[in-house]
Amino acid sequence: MKDFIWNVDTKIMFGKDFLKDLPNEIQKYGDRVLITYGGGSIKTIGLYDKVIKVLKKANIFYKELGGIEPNPRVESAREGVKIVRENDLNFILAIGGGSVIDLSKLIAGATFVDADPWKIVIKEEKIEKALPIGTILTLAATGSEMDAGGVITNPETKQKLGFGSPYTTPKFSILNPETTYSVNERHTAAGVADIMSHTMENYFTLNDGAYLQNRLAEAILKTCIHYGPIALNNPTNYDARANIMWASSWAINGLLNTGKDTNWSVHAMEHELSAFYDLTHGIGLAILTPRFLNHILDDSTVDMIRDFGINVFNIRPTNDKFVDAKKSIGALHEFFEQQMHIPMTLEEVGIDDEHLEEMAKRAATHAGGTIKGVKQLTSEDILEIYKKSLY
Amino acid sequence: MKDFIWNVDTKIMFGKDFLKDLPNEIQKYGDRVLITYGGGSIKTIGLYDKVIKVLKKANIFYKELGGIEPNPRVESAREGVKIVRENDLNFILAIGGGSVIDLSKLIAGATFVDADPWKIVIKEEKIEKALPIGTILTLAATGSEMDAGGVITNPETKQKLGFGSPYTTPKFSILNPETTYSVNERHTAAGVADIMSHTMENYFTLNDGAYLQNRLAEAILKTCIHYGPIALNNPTNYDARANIMWASSWAINGLLNTGKDTNWSVHAMEHELSAFYDLTHGIGLAILTPRFLNHILDDSTVDMIRDFGINVFNIRPTNDKFVDAKKSIGALHEFFEQQMHIPMTLEEVGIDDEHLEEMAKRAATHAGGTIKGVKQLTSEDILEIYKKSLY
Repeated sequence: MKDFIWNVDTKIMFGKDFLKDLPNEIQKYGDRVLITYGGGSIKTIGLYDKVIKVLKKANIFYKELGGIEPNPRVESAREGVKIVRENDLNFILAIGGGSVIDLSKLIAGATFVDADPWKIVIKEEKIEKALPIGTILTLAATGSEMDAGGVITNPETKQKLGFGSPYTTPKFSILNPETTYSVNERHTAAGVADIMSHTMENYFTLNDGAYLQNRLAEAILKTCIHYGPIALNNPTNYDARANIMWASSWAINGLLNTGKDTNWSVHAMEHELSAFYDLTHGIGLAILTPRFLNHILDDSTVDMIRDFGINVFNIRPTNDKFVDAKKSIGALHEFFEQQMHIPMTLEEVGIDDEHLEEMAKRAATHAGGTIKGVKQLTSEDILEIYKKSLY
Repeated sequence: MKDFIWNVDTKIMFGKDFLKDLPNEIQKYGDRVLITYGGGSIKTIGLYDKVIKVLKKANIFYKELGGIEPNPRVESAREGVKIVRENDLNFILAIGGGSVIDLSKLIAGATFVDADPWKIVIKEEKIEKALPIGTILTLAATGSEMDAGGVITNPETKQKLGFGSPYTTPKFSILNPETTYSVNERHTAAGVADIMSHTMENYFTLNDGAYLQNRLAEAILKTCIHYGPIALNNPTNYDARANIMWASSWAINGLLNTGKDTNWSVHAMEHELSAFYDLTHGIGLAILTPRFLNHILDDSTVDMIRDFGINVFNIRPTNDKFVDAKKSIGALHEFFEQQMHIPMTLEEVGIDDEHLEEMAKRAATHAGGTIKGVKQLTSEDILEIYKKSLY
């Protein structure tokens, strides 16, 4: 096991009844709030009104930035920074899913940087200070409510890139599973796939002695496999929504990769798809992951992939390790397709072979020449994985 | 799943090389340090000298309180408070296992209470403020390095009782698995049993929909079962010591009981044994747990106990749930006895039937009349579990 530091201090208030504590939590850090949200679903479900009511009752000053995109764009961060500076705001309350929280993190950091926010994303500027952030989560997926990072899209340059800073970890997050009742089938499935992908990106490593971490990862995968279909079939099943929501935070808050070297190969490939096609992130991850595993399957990885199937999908082991590993990959593909109703080919989500080569090259370039991880992936490898994902 | 708050902010520095960062971490909080430790094993393994060296190099003023007992006694807390007050100390560095850290927590809180420290333990006084604490862990067992609580013994009243306050959660903990290389077979085994007991106390609940938490608990149990025997047979196996150490923190830091009502039945029974006989806590827990499970086995608990065996010990399920549940309990007993070499009867650890009745009554009284949990335990139930544990 490698040396590591664990230092995650987000306070999580989980359950049905914590909105009343919102003013108290905000006032620990600030009194002039930027409220950020997305396309308005928080208004449909009545959450917006409830938040405004408690803020008004506590006489907390606020401004709003709505309309943040599903793959959040750097323009929105520019707008957010402007509102913060013009109104001397000192706290950000992000209400939404990962996109809203990710974008809020960029605003929080960019407020104190004298340059365009995009410079932070492309690492030309560094976050040394940030506005404190609180979140009210409405989608179980990205884990942004309890980690330091975010992913931002720049449509002009067709780039979708991650950034992160310990300063942008939320101070608190309110997780009410009921707020996810109205999430539709497609986004529920994409969220579950996203959580599983985070977990698998942390899980698929070799010979690092991180046994506990791998068992914890399997616990999260089993939870997704158990409750994903239940949430699809019964969107108001509280325990299903609650387990998926709590799993989303722990899949990516850093626990699963303590003591490990991880490299997030599938995310690196998927970000190009989303940048070119505005594809829902989790859907892209679900499509690519089985093809990725098939591509890296060889003598060095067969035990790892086989154990995954045995421990997570209860594959009964045979004498042929490769047969077992292929069964494991098949079980994952089938779970996404049959149980989560995810379209499992690029063709079904409207992606043809036009840009595959360009995306493969960019994925490799963004990763510094090759994507690292269990297996190094060159642009040729990536292209092959894309091609295998087409139909 | 029940509503909960998760708010654990201890910074963990895990690995071989973090002692050099100790002065920096201390100086975030204080500059006049009380160093606490136990019987001197930290001197034998050279850790004491290394700590003193880095503190001196950084010109950090310190005083010492050594000789803290394995079941730490309230007298030592009185002494610690005296040293803190006389020297105007403002930070506690606990070097040791759970006993040293638990006692340091009491000193940290009692410093600001104008009454005898024991009043805090018996809840006549409340901790409203505490000195900041950092720890250097040398024994993987109690999880005190990452939680709010402690257990203190009062030999005069034959009481061993828990206390806790959010103010006494360590600010940071340095976990170097190498410092546990010299822990002998008996204490390694007792530590593993302690970790497993914490996990099982959180795990054995009914119908609370905390599916994720139970899978996480199983991950920790599997880690103990896998690496416990390896650590016994090869005490300097780094990955074994590392996995057990990291498991110890997560067994009891609050994650496993998020969303659950837990009541720690076995601990309540064991504390009486340790209070009367100064028995190593983990040994007592190992002896009592299988008898406890046998005692509560009935129609309402059979599925829970059976699942435990299937998921943790790979028991192959039959058509008879009770047979499977008994196999599960047998597997646990056998693991402690055969693989961890733990004496599995009270007789073997020098406890006869002399005080059983008195201890059973006190255990019930300390729990408010009956021990709560999956099943309520009256003093008669407790006595029967003690008796079944004799031989």
